[in-house]
Amino acid sequence: MKFTIEGTDSKARAGRLETSHGCVETPFFMPVATQGSVKAVDPTDLMEAGSQIILSNAYHLYLRPGDELISKMGGLHKFMGWDRPILTDSGGFQGFSLRDLRKIYDDGIQFRSHIDGSEHMITPQSIVKIQENLGSDIIMPLDVCLPTTSDKESLKVGLYKTSEWMQICLESKKNDEQALFGIVQGGIYDDLREQSAEFMTSLDMPGYSIGGLSVGESKADMYRIAGKTAGLLPDEKPRYLMGVGSPEDLVENVANGIDMFDCVLPTRVARNGALFTKKGRVNVNTSRFRGVDCPIDKDCRCYTCLRFSVGYLHHLFKAREYLAYRLASIHNITFINDLTRNMRDAIMACKFHEFYNAFMADYVPVSSS
Amino acid sequence: MKFTIEGTDSKARAGRLETSHGCVETPFFMPVATQGSVKAVDPTDLMEAGSQIILSNAYHLYLRPGDELISKMGGLHKFMGWDRPILTDSGGFQGFSLRDLRKIYDDGIQFRSHIDGSEHMITPQSIVKIQENLGSDIIMPLDVCLPTTSDKESLKVGLYKTSEWMQICLESKKNDEQALFGIVQGGIYDDLREQSAEFMTSLDMPGYSIGGLSVGESKADMYRIAGKTAGLLPDEKPRYLMGVGSPEDLVENVANGIDMFDCVLPTRVARNGALFTKKGRVNVNTSRFRGVDCPIDKDCRCYTCLRFSVGYLHHLFKAREYLAYRLASIHNITFINDLTRNMRDAIMACKFHEFYNAFMADYVPVSSS
Repeated sequence: MKFTIEGTDSKARAGRLETSHGCVETPFFMPVATQGSVKAVDPTDLMEAGSQIILSNAYHLYLRPGDELISKMGGLHKFMGWDRPILTDSGGFQGFSLRDLRKIYDDGIQFRSHIDGSEHMITPQSIVKIQENLGSDIIMPLDVCLPTTSDKESLKVGLYKTSEWMQICLESKKNDEQALFGIVQGGIYDDLREQSAEFMTSLDMPGYSIGGLSVGESKADMYRIAGKTAGLLPDEKPRYLMGVGSPEDLVENVANGIDMFDCVLPTRVARNGALFTKKGRVNVNTSRFRGVDCPIDKDCRCYTCLRFSVGYLHHLFKAREYLAYRLASIHNITFINDLTRNMRDAIMACKFHEFYNAFMADYVPVSSS
Repeated sequence: MKFTIEGTDSKARAGRLETSHGCVETPFFMPVATQGSVKAVDPTDLMEAGSQIILSNAYHLYLRPGDELISKMGGLHKFMGWDRPILTDSGGFQGFSLRDLRKIYDDGIQFRSHIDGSEHMITPQSIVKIQENLGSDIIMPLDVCLPTTSDKESLKVGLYKTSEWMQICLESKKNDEQALFGIVQGGIYDDLREQSAEFMTSLDMPGYSIGGLSVGESKADMYRIAGKTAGLLPDEKPRYLMGVGSPEDLVENVANGIDMFDCVLPTRVARNGALFTKKGRVNVNTSRFRGVDCPIDKDCRCYTCLRFSVGYLHHLFKAREYLAYRLASIHNITFINDLTRNMRDAIMACKFHEFYNAFMADYVPVSSS
């Protein structure tokens, strides 16, 4: 994997990431295909929406249908019909999101399957092997992801474990086509983040993730720690802020020097009828959209906006038609992809500051609307 | 509306129907967009699947979002983004399928809405007005559709009412761009069918539907009555067998001289994982499809089969991913459209008998598998 910075504006960066499945321009957002499908859309939809790369989940695919089965079927790209780059997350985040179903040991995480209750020990070694079977382009080490509300001592212990496991992942890795990233943990504590970043950068990984954010802390803390941590990472490597993906969070964190994002939010809220516009989210279920014969956003050039009125979408949601979920997801994914593309253009033109100010002047985040 | 017969082979017919939204070749199948969306697919999918015309439902659209709202938004074609022909059913069938929520009176059917419990009187006059608001190309009169298991006296009374209402619909109709069909009722009684056909053909409608089948009778009765009734209708008008749409039923009834079909079956069973193949339906949920790296049908050229393995579909169904429903629906709609297209080609080549025998030799219907 090769990363080239093509332009910067203050801390914001525009770059180019070369992977085994082609090039990706940064900053970018990865829609989430947890189980090998970005919910309600297909690869053609994603390409039309401008997605360059997607994220899938090693732990989920290990459970079902099984990474060995996917390997026999030619790997994840072929399995799901997506020939552009794929990043797989390890299951470290499931150690947070499924924390009632897991126990963290010294040598790995023991999960009880949410599908059939069976027990599964995921180790740093096994997660690398799973991701080698999947054949994803960028792979993640097993890490300990704790709520940011955890006490400092627990976060510290988690950090040590993350570091140890990182080393094991690195030693287990066999496939040179795959890029293994480091993950910086440490909650909202500056000194822990410093410690973690120092260790991770000492390994000279091809890229670095910032983990353990968007898991309980305030937005202000998230922005501060993401910015702080980004500054601890080498300029010449891509920086990936894990699990962050609302429009305002993307803009704030591109300003922080982040290059890569993923989040279920754009597709999850879409399935509830929340659609992104330049002025903030709108809820298409509300009666004010009944009979409205224009697109969600008249400037949007997504598949949905070019073909369907918001009044029709309102009807599809009210009638609980499957098509509602697909059309809304396409719109939100396109919105986020356009946003990252516009930020990139602004950075290349050294006008990111203007872009940032214009965006923030128009966009009303959910919490304050 | 103009109908031209282009070829016949024994009783089977290949024709051409000219509507205000373009030409349609017969025999054809109409996927069902009850609420203004063919479940889980969109207009682009339908066009790619080879659909020339779709069916929607006047009663359902009257309830939600309202035919007047659709009229204000430019009509049903524009509302749902489909610019090819649309046939709307009246709500007569809902008098059967929602019979716990309706009462039949002399002047119409009183429905209790399944959405909010409100009361709605649908009359022959109002159903024409509703369909004029929708702007569909082919419209249906309000009819009395009873289970075929009803006693003969009730069927007879229903028939008289259907005839009276037909006359009222005809008198209420104002828009010359729309073709109002007659509906022949009469259950499984030859004499009632004769009586109904005689009345309907006396009105010289642009096309005739055969209603009241596939509502409780045996397949043998359905084939017999459809064939019998088709023979009572004028050669030069299109014949539409309502609510029939399994592959074997289409082949039997094209042999009977039917030109038009609609049914929720292909899309409904698709959403349960039942996929059509030349040898019959297969259930993609079964474990024999796990890890199978080839399409559902290697000869199928549908969007789904060209891009995804049946092993991936199996996974999507197991994981309850929305994409499963869309991909399976696209396959089944394409299968049915290809089937009608192949029947047409066989009729034009005077080889329908060979086609029929070959199909029946390979295809195992569900009931006997």
